[in-house]
Amino acid sequence: MPARIDGRQAHELRPITIETGYQEFAEGSCLISFGKTRVLCAASVAERQPGWLRNTQSGWVTAEYSMLPRSTSTRTQREVERGRPGGRTQEIQRLIGRSLRAAVDLDLLGPRTITVDCDVLQADGGTRTASVTGGFIALRLAAEKLALANLIPPETITTQVAAVSAGIVAGTPVLDLCYEEDSAAEVDFNVVMTGADAFVEVQGTAEGKPFDGASLDALVELARGGIAELFERQREALRAAQT
Amino acid sequence: MPARIDGRQAHELRPITIETGYQEFAEGSCLISFGKTRVLCAASVAERQPGWLRNTQSGWVTAEYSMLPRSTSTRTQREVERGRPGGRTQEIQRLIGRSLRAAVDLDLLGPRTITVDCDVLQADGGTRTASVTGGFIALRLAAEKLALANLIPPETITTQVAAVSAGIVAGTPVLDLCYEEDSAAEVDFNVVMTGADAFVEVQGTAEGKPFDGASLDALVELARGGIAELFERQREALRAAQT
Amino acid sequence: MPARIDGRQAHELRPITIETGYQEFAEGSCLISFGKTRVLCAASVAERQPGWLRNTQSGWVTAEYSMLPRSTSTRTQREVERGRPGGRTQEIQRLIGRSLRAAVDLDLLGPRTITVDCDVLQADGGTRTASVTGGFIALRLAAEKLALANLIPPETITTQVAAVSAGIVAGTPVLDLCYEEDSAAEVDFNVVMTGADAFVEVQGTAEGKPFDGASLDALVELARGGIAELFERQREALRAAQT
Amino acid sequence: MPARIDGRQAHELRPITIETGYQEFAEGSCLISFGKTRVLCAASVAERQPGWLRNTQSGWVTAEYSMLPRSTSTRTQREVERGRPGGRTQEIQRLIGRSLRAAVDLDLLGPRTITVDCDVLQADGGTRTASVTGGFIALRLAAEKLALANLIPPETITTQVAAVSAGIVAGTPVLDLCYEEDSAAEVDFNVVMTGADAFVEVQGTAEGKPFDGASLDALVELARGGIAELFERQREALRAAQT
Amino acid sequence: MPARIDGRQAHELRPITIETGYQEFAEGSCLISFGKTRVLCAASVAERQPGWLRNTQSGWVTAEYSMLPRSTSTRTQREVERGRPGGRTQEIQRLIGRSLRAAVDLDLLGPRTITVDCDVLQADGGTRTASVTGGFIALRLAAEKLALANLIPPETITTQVAAVSAGIVAGTPVLDLCYEEDSAAEVDFNVVMTGADAFVEVQGTAEGKPFDGASLDALVELARGGIAELFERQREALRAAQT
Amino acid sequence: MPARIDGRQAHELRPITIETGYQEFAEGSCLISFGKTRVLCAASVAERQPGWLRNTQSGWVTAEYSMLPRSTSTRTQREVERGRPGGRTQEIQRLIGRSLRAAVDLDLLGPRTITVDCDVLQADGGTRTASVTGGFIALRLAAEKLALANLIPPETITTQVAAVSAGIVAGTPVLDLCYEEDSAAEVDFNVVMTGADAFVEVQGTAEGKPFDGASLDALVELARGGIAELFERQREALRAAQT
Repeated sequence: MPARIDGRQAHELRPITIETGYQEFAEGSCLISFGKTRVLCAASVAERQPGWLRNTQSGWVTAEYSMLPRSTSTRTQREVERGRPGGRTQEIQRLIGRSLRAAVDLDLLGPRTITVDCDVLQADGGTRTASVTGGFIALRLAAEKLALANLIPPETITTQVAAVSAGIVAGTPVLDLCYEEDSAAEVDFNVVMTGADAFVEVQGTAEGKPFDGASLDALVELARGGIAELFERQREALRAAQT
Repeated sequence: MPARIDGRQAHELRPITIETGYQEFAEGSCLISFGKTRVLCAASVAERQPGWLRNTQSGWVTAEYSMLPRSTSTRTQREVERGRPGGRTQEIQRLIGRSLRAAVDLDLLGPRTITVDCDVLQADGGTRTASVTGGFIALRLAAEKLALANLIPPETITTQVAAVSAGIVAGTPVLDLCYEEDSAAEVDFNVVMTGADAFVEVQGTAEGKPFDGASLDALVELARGGIAELFERQREALRAAQT
Repeated sequence: MPARIDGRQAHELRPITIETGYQEFAEGSCLISFGKTRVLCAASVAERQPGWLRNTQSGWVTAEYSMLPRSTSTRTQREVERGRPGGRTQEIQRLIGRSLRAAVDLDLLGPRTITVDCDVLQADGGTRTASVTGGFIALRLAAEKLALANLIPPETITTQVAAVSAGIVAGTPVLDLCYEEDSAAEVDFNVVMTGADAFVEVQGTAEGKPFDGASLDALVELARGGIAELFERQREALRAAQT
Repeated sequence: MPARIDGRQAHELRPITIETGYQEFAEGSCLISFGKTRVLCAASVAERQPGWLRNTQSGWVTAEYSMLPRSTSTRTQREVERGRPGGRTQEIQRLIGRSLRAAVDLDLLGPRTITVDCDVLQADGGTRTASVTGGFIALRLAAEKLALANLIPPETITTQVAAVSAGIVAGTPVLDLCYEEDSAAEVDFNVVMTGADAFVEVQGTAEGKPFDGASLDALVELARGGIAELFERQREALRAAQT
Repeated sequence: MPARIDGRQAHELRPITIETGYQEFAEGSCLISFGKTRVLCAASVAERQPGWLRNTQSGWVTAEYSMLPRSTSTRTQREVERGRPGGRTQEIQRLIGRSLRAAVDLDLLGPRTITVDCDVLQADGGTRTASVTGGFIALRLAAEKLALANLIPPETITTQVAAVSAGIVAGTPVLDLCYEEDSAAEVDFNVVMTGADAFVEVQGTAEGKPFDGASLDALVELARGGIAELFERQREALRAAQT
Repeated sequence: MPARIDGRQAHELRPITIETGYQEFAEGSCLISFGKTRVLCAASVAERQPGWLRNTQSGWVTAEYSMLPRSTSTRTQREVERGRPGGRTQEIQRLIGRSLRAAVDLDLLGPRTITVDCDVLQADGGTRTASVTGGFIALRLAAEKLALANLIPPETITTQVAAVSAGIVAGTPVLDLCYEEDSAAEVDFNVVMTGADAFVEVQGTAEGKPFDGASLDALVELARGGIAELFERQREALRAAQT
């Protein structure tokens, strides 16, 4: 088996670090790193519903995603300068929002909205999966604060949610691709799962040549293993935040 | 097994019709129906490359997608009135473009761009899969015209591409969901394949509750069967267009 | 007299076809053709007034107009990509709206809005006049549905409205110009009339050289004849729709 | 015959004043008044062609139109705050541009663009006709400057152009409507003519009830008389500017 | 001491003229000139508060600023064509608004908004200071009208406000720079003061080389003298308006 | 003298920390804190000039400024969602750009552009002064890299630049206001200076009541002292970065 660029095994994650409470004013926040990829996640609680939930007692969880201009190896223009979020940004923030909602009982949340902002400080591949994984921490911390204030029951957060990428690079399925691997990948998967070992999202795209059923199975299995490990990292960070 | 809303079997497609040459001025076009869903697809050839291909001899295939305001059961505001394509629109047109490019040898296409417009005249679920399936017909007809004029070799189009949706409705995996089924689905898949029985895209989303690995396998299998049938419909339409 | 490009007489319309009910979900719809020009017209009823009618019992009729990118002989960029409807589009949709309101008693319509969407599937000259003529059919069908439900009185639609173009081509006044004639015309008229043989709009523009009073009279007379014939086509289509 | 609001005869213009050279930096400019309606017109010459004239030796004349927020009796929001010129603005600036081009030999103008800005300082009806009439003065003055510098031949400006409104108020055809008359008018005409007694534009709209052929004739005749008088005012102003 | 371009002394203002009531429909208006710089200022009263004052009895004063395209020596594109006010425009309108609010007791103004529009007809340097100085006149005239109608007490306007520029040109501090001086200035100051000889704004920018504390003092002193004179001109214009 | 909210003396800065190299991909970067205010500054070098410098050998330095949505005590909407940078943002980024250019010999910089991005991670008052002070570090580090590569001479950076705020709170002039002081301040100053003890910008605004000349002098003096200390901090950080 060919060695990976950074010497990792095919099924190995990059070093994961999670620093909770990074933005002091936010109801919940963390700075998460997957190797050089660094995303600042913050959850904000607002006591209002989106329009379409009016006349219900349900709440909502939504996400926004953005990259700092110099998170990338050459400077990327700010989207505000073009007047609107690009297609990629919108696709990613829709994915993060859907993923996080899979961990929340929106009826128990009550008539409020939690917005999870994921701002990429440094981008080296996997920014969307780091955003989902770190966004869950920020969401969970904000929910704990609401629960402590008796505004929501503790069971509003029903499970964990985490995400990881997998792909086929030079014919080999590998986990958690860095930017250089991602650019060379023939197939690119992003998988989101809940703590109950169930899938929320499976998105696979052939960048170069189409893939067969066996590859699909192999990539899903790699991702499942990586996510189990991310769940462990999340639990450690949440335990540390409470002490 | 519970009967489907419109009496179909779980693995059955809706009636498929393809009318080629609907827009006379386009290099290739068709009006495709998946049941009540009707999409007008047109391929336009331009003798210029996108900026990032400058200094190469490669071409590009891109797609645009839009719904007429009254394609839907209540009127939908035009996106131009809001000043920009929404997130869903951009996500769909990126998907269509990627899917169609899987059938094209961009080096053989040469320094030109083919834009495939998919305009939904009536929307009853599955508009993105009908767009990919009909978009391929339009693209193929345009390529034939270019090949006839000796501008590109016939092998520029390397395979067929088609797409279909599948989902879990009331616990049962079903193929090619209509709008009413789609609204009630717990899990929603869109699968794009090439004529070589290989996957271009697998996108599965849990709308309500997360899904397990067995469901993933079942849905992918259903889609594979539906796409085989769509390939047959495409070949018939292309044969008819040539006579 | 020089023969016209397509062999028509100076005072002859192109073949007119009207297919009602083309968009099943709309309250009223039709696909109208003036020769190769094809416009899909749909009327949508909303139970709300525009802001400036608040505190009255009146309703409103408005129109939107758009061309599919490949309705034209070379592809036209979507207006949403430029972020706003162009000047021509706005001018045309204001004309269609004003014209259709001339056939409606807005007080009888009551506090609701009818939006008539005119989407050009194929453009070969005269798209705005086809839009007015087909838009009236869609509007009338929607009003019939409202009247059947006893929401408005049948006399809410007070008359017919139709439109046609006329122009001076190579010195000769001709009716209902196709694109090629339109491009070569020295003078370009659009006339909208009601069933009471009265004018709603007369818009004449010298494209090349200014015109004298005699030309103005001749063109208005040509248009009047064409519109009388369009009224007949409208009545046939509406009768057919009812059976 | 019922007296008009301001005591004028049916065929009478409001007091017309033209002050040339109002904006010192412009190649040509004037402040024109039709009664209380005051429009500042400026012609700017740029030594470049619009894109579609590239590879020709022709020039172009275009116009822009805007109203100061407090030109109107209650404040009107600036269009820049809404992010784009409204439909009415675009319709008017297209009309002014077409009208002025009828007075110019664009081949003789050579590869340059003249932009005529019409900014309404005070609006009391007829702002578009004052803009055409005053815009011609600004254009003519700029052309004289170019001719003096031997950049274009004097015959580049081929004729005069002026415009006036007419309408049916309380059943009577009247010339040059002020705002109050305009609001009450059943029919509203704007007519643009050249010095050769020929029409450039005839735009008639029934605001309330449709009009018959006799009304059309009467309004066109009124306008012709008013324009003849405006030509006289233009010639006086231009003579005064030269001394 | 080197003579100034237009022969003025270092501490001398350009000729100041103020014509009140220029826009008849506005609650207060004036056309103010500082030499060739001419700004049309209009105050509009609206009986509504901005959102953030809801549930209070306070009012607000805001300003908008724009330049006519041909106010400048070469034509400047309209900001509406770029879809939004530029950074400089926003900076200036924020400055004018803040400055005028320094002269108003917003609690006495009551739940209404006064918008002061400053439209530059001709720009020869100092347009923002002319806008503040003329804007105060328009505001004061509008307030007098409200006071006459017993809607606000006369002491709502608590003081005068005026502004002037100063700068270092060729090493010498000078007052009220014209465009040519401004372009050559090393340091550029704008100072706004109230009638109580107090500062509202001091904005100093080194365009070329940084300035020391002595220069700062000299420029502020020059500005103070110029503003005293502008207060006198304002009082004359207001007295004349009342007779 | 009343104690300050956080116990500081009137002339005391908050704790200043500067972490260089925070964004690995940038040519120069630092994370700077003024107390709880934290700004991430990155300098990007591009080998192209802005349009107006074409045909010269000069370069340019520009800045962009943005706040993360949850840098503030309640969430702030992203500007991209409103389609454009707000007035305050543009004003600040113009200020940062002008300030940094005061430290650069643009002719020596040569035909390139350095963009300094200042992204506020946490906002507790003084974000613009922290941006200037940290932006200089990023700029200087990028310039060192260019000088090391012999692309520019070391003397391209001609001096240091730093900025600080001062204000009058409860009648007392104080240095480097935190958010709570800033909200209560009667007068708000921002001062930018170079290492040669000279002013680049002096911006003073009366938020509540106008200020006299003595206050102006006191605030400028306070700022001068604070900036001297910031220069020391900058030098320490730059020395540490080189080892």
